[in-house]
Amino acid sequence: MTTVGEYLFQRLKSLGVDHIFGVPGDYVLSLMDVMIESPVNLVCTCNELNAGYAADAYARVKGIGAVCVTYGVGGFSLVNAVVGAYAERVPLVVISGAPNSSVKQQNLLLHHTTGDYNLQFSIMEKATVAAAILNNPAQAALQIDQILAACIHHKRPVYLEIPCDIVNQPCLIPESCIYISEKLTDKDALKEAVEEAVNLLDKSTKPVILAGVEFHRFNLQDKLLKLLEVTGYPLATTLLGKSCLSEMHPQFIGTYVGALSRDYVSQRLEGADCVLCLGAIMSDMNLGGFTAKLDSNKLINANSEKVKVKHHFYQPVYLGDFIDGLIENLQKKELIELDIKPASDLLASSYEIKPEAKLTNVRFYERMNHFIAQKSFVISDTGDAIVATIDLLMPNKTDFIGQAFYLSIGYSIPACLGVCFASPATRQIVFVGDGAFQMTAQELSTIIRHKFNPVIFLINNDGYTIERVINDNLYNDLQPWKYHQLPAVFGDSWSCVVRTEDELESALKKADAIEDKICFIEVILDRFDCSEGLTRLGRALKSANTDQS
Amino acid sequence: MTTVGEYLFQRLKSLGVDHIFGVPGDYVLSLMDVMIESPVNLVCTCNELNAGYAADAYARVKGIGAVCVTYGVGGFSLVNAVVGAYAERVPLVVISGAPNSSVKQQNLLLHHTTGDYNLQFSIMEKATVAAAILNNPAQAALQIDQILAACIHHKRPVYLEIPCDIVNQPCLIPESCIYISEKLTDKDALKEAVEEAVNLLDKSTKPVILAGVEFHRFNLQDKLLKLLEVTGYPLATTLLGKSCLSEMHPQFIGTYVGALSRDYVSQRLEGADCVLCLGAIMSDMNLGGFTAKLDSNKLINANSEKVKVKHHFYQPVYLGDFIDGLIENLQKKELIELDIKPASDLLASSYEIKPEAKLTNVRFYERMNHFIAQKSFVISDTGDAIVATIDLLMPNKTDFIGQAFYLSIGYSIPACLGVCFASPATRQIVFVGDGAFQMTAQELSTIIRHKFNPVIFLINNDGYTIERVINDNLYNDLQPWKYHQLPAVFGDSWSCVVRTEDELESALKKADAIEDKICFIEVILDRFDCSEGLTRLGRALKSANTDQS
Repeated sequence: MTTVGEYLFQRLKSLGVDHIFGVPGDYVLSLMDVMIESPVNLVCTCNELNAGYAADAYARVKGIGAVCVTYGVGGFSLVNAVVGAYAERVPLVVISGAPNSSVKQQNLLLHHTTGDYNLQFSIMEKATVAAAILNNPAQAALQIDQILAACIHHKRPVYLEIPCDIVNQPCLIPESCIYISEKLTDKDALKEAVEEAVNLLDKSTKPVILAGVEFHRFNLQDKLLKLLEVTGYPLATTLLGKSCLSEMHPQFIGTYVGALSRDYVSQRLEGADCVLCLGAIMSDMNLGGFTAKLDSNKLINANSEKVKVKHHFYQPVYLGDFIDGLIENLQKKELIELDIKPASDLLASSYEIKPEAKLTNVRFYERMNHFIAQKSFVISDTGDAIVATIDLLMPNKTDFIGQAFYLSIGYSIPACLGVCFASPATRQIVFVGDGAFQMTAQELSTIIRHKFNPVIFLINNDGYTIERVINDNLYNDLQPWKYHQLPAVFGDSWSCVVRTEDELESALKKADAIEDKICFIEVILDRFDCSEGLTRLGRALKSANTDQS
Repeated sequence: MTTVGEYLFQRLKSLGVDHIFGVPGDYVLSLMDVMIESPVNLVCTCNELNAGYAADAYARVKGIGAVCVTYGVGGFSLVNAVVGAYAERVPLVVISGAPNSSVKQQNLLLHHTTGDYNLQFSIMEKATVAAAILNNPAQAALQIDQILAACIHHKRPVYLEIPCDIVNQPCLIPESCIYISEKLTDKDALKEAVEEAVNLLDKSTKPVILAGVEFHRFNLQDKLLKLLEVTGYPLATTLLGKSCLSEMHPQFIGTYVGALSRDYVSQRLEGADCVLCLGAIMSDMNLGGFTAKLDSNKLINANSEKVKVKHHFYQPVYLGDFIDGLIENLQKKELIELDIKPASDLLASSYEIKPEAKLTNVRFYERMNHFIAQKSFVISDTGDAIVATIDLLMPNKTDFIGQAFYLSIGYSIPACLGVCFASPATRQIVFVGDGAFQMTAQELSTIIRHKFNPVIFLINNDGYTIERVINDNLYNDLQPWKYHQLPAVFGDSWSCVVRTEDELESALKKADAIEDKICFIEVILDRFDCSEGLTRLGRALKSANTDQS
């Protein structure tokens, strides 16, 4: 025997959830009291949306994350974080307190509600793959297990609503646990899919692998490593799949984002006679605003649940099984024939400081590529930051995060908080523009509160640059904050402003030396100084939005 | 002929919308371009939730408000503001850009979406009284009119989604405008309701009027004034109805919030032999966490669409018509019999400063009652602030705002921005706790950007006090910001910290003298120093949430 609240936190803990992000509110206080006594830690954030972003980032690193809020004002403030997690396949457990289960039936107008006690559930149900209200303690443990199993299986958000009087009700611990759902594979379909793919790949002379986000989500990185080893093929990743292996791997050629990619990367992908695309979400931004030119007649596209060759499908075929089949059957190609230029060549030339030279976007990110260290974990916000970091070379698997498909501006600061807890052995490095920063700036204070030491690069180019390249008008202007003065308002921190290359050098030295607090570096760039990739993206998005048909 | 975008902004302008709050994003840029050229002004906020709160407050003052955001990341970030407006009957027009209408049919995964292009509409449909996607320019003008008519009729949020390629499409201006929906009244039901109510009220000896939020929403204040004049009855308001008339009116006895009210107010309401309750939402907080003791056998309860006497209904009967009937038929009672203690007596005793005395909650709000001036507009945030300002006497109609039913913490700073634009002739005074402030603090910068001069009282008592009185645990602690240093980070401002009564006096003098910028006063109170009302509310909410049945 246990209680409903205790059972929930025991289960989450056993799945690897050590920290839950949230904001208190009266309908969730009894549940939070149980959490505080449980092996799971509560991390309170400044507001609910930020808690959602932090839990989302935590889930990307740890394989599962959770957020806990009060009813109504809490749950409804979370919606954007939940939809973002849904889009990018993030296993996020959304937990909401709720009014006393008996009160709901009395037709009362309770605070934080509209009087419709089905509204939050009906909205969350749409934004998640499974949702339940724990009204009955006798069913609660089973419901919790089913909901968590759905989260793990689909790698998408789920929703649990717990009325405050149910939290401490006794419940039985189920005898068996139903978490580990088998990945479905039709053996005949698998065999045929592998045969067809092997046939195409073996006779190709310029094949390339394009790996996506599902390697992070389904923890398939080792299989990818093995596949590279047995085939010798070059590897590119999508932007959402970035860092699914060490980007120092000799077969890794770069991140492919259509016309936003380096020329070599796009030529290699678009000139391939067979592209083996594995675990990627084919979204517009992931494909460089649809500037990607992948010929579907030369494409093998495998996702978690199916394989598509040219224009036909094999289903159900689990991605891991398909890769195993390829590993067993593909022939190794000659290194000389494949002629691979590793991305790590980008680091071959050393960065020479031009003292007193005004900092530019290109030079800043060039410098960053040499600043990234073995223990760095990069979080890039939506805007020029995520585009400009496409070619930042990440040394380890899953040490880069950005919302490359859903693109919520303001994600990075709360996400950094999540990564601080999920990956404390790394040093977090955030790239965030001024517009994105203004959205969620207060969450810096929670990072400071817990004495983490990330390095935040606030790229101040005086406005929403990502929109300026699409369409410029008054709405792209921002109130010019004194950004570098903000951390001191929140607590113990170090910050500075840099405008020139030598100022940046001193700041980096200082940031390297400081180990016990946040380092906040405001980087001043010219108003229209952005990455070449962003300019191309802006052009593509403008044309997609104005095309009339 | 006009265009879809131009038509929308012309209509909004004609309804009194001079400012629309929003955040740009690529799917809404073409619409914002049209707005900037239109007679309506775009006010950009730091994030979407804050834009929603600002527009909500603007609507409370002007009778209608609008918010404009991009698709997905924008719309989903707004949900809590929309649900809050729904709960409190705020006529808020929610406008969202959307991807090109042709792209949607191509099964593409666009950024800011999950690939389900019905998701945002289906969620917004649940949180509003009317919703439409303007896919067809030929229908667009009619759809716009229908949606706006629903907003005005129901005084609740509505939703308009405009694909970016539709914005500049030509459309015909409809010949007739369908805005002014008749308020429905069944004449026979009205006659009978008035007769029964008059009979009860005329024979009562201790009647009292309890007026609610619908006086603000349906602009019925003049009728209320007339009703007071012809009857002589005392008037109380609910918390959400607060300031529906000048609180200096000699028949106004105070704000009734159950056990949170002053003793005289609760005795008068609960001891009345007939309570005439007009236009009130009977929610828990509005009734002091259900501590109100109104005998339903002595209650006449009229809302915008029906009248309830004891336990039977008259429907449809429009509130304005019902009040007209009462005005025509009720007899005036003798002043002596009614024995009214006006709330304005609270101001009879002058406030004497005790120099160097440490500031307390009671003394601070006592002082505030003398600080409020003819041109003050008060915005109280959720928490002790809204409870402690129950008895602040507001000199004019609709010069007090607080989310007294839905209670979103963090509402006040963005709401202040909305009021600055909606009521520029007043001086806004904000009461906000430290926890609430951390939620939405960045919106101070938008107030500063537009050079408004509100006075912000940041009540710093080191945590979520409203929750401490319900249940205290670690989650009620906050990172202690140096709050008074924040405005200077955002721009031109004046701020200070006060701990004693004479420090407060100097600060108030300074705030009175400064006319051209924001005045930010951080008020330090002891950790558990809150209003008596809050302690009682905490007790009531704790018992409601822990009751098991």
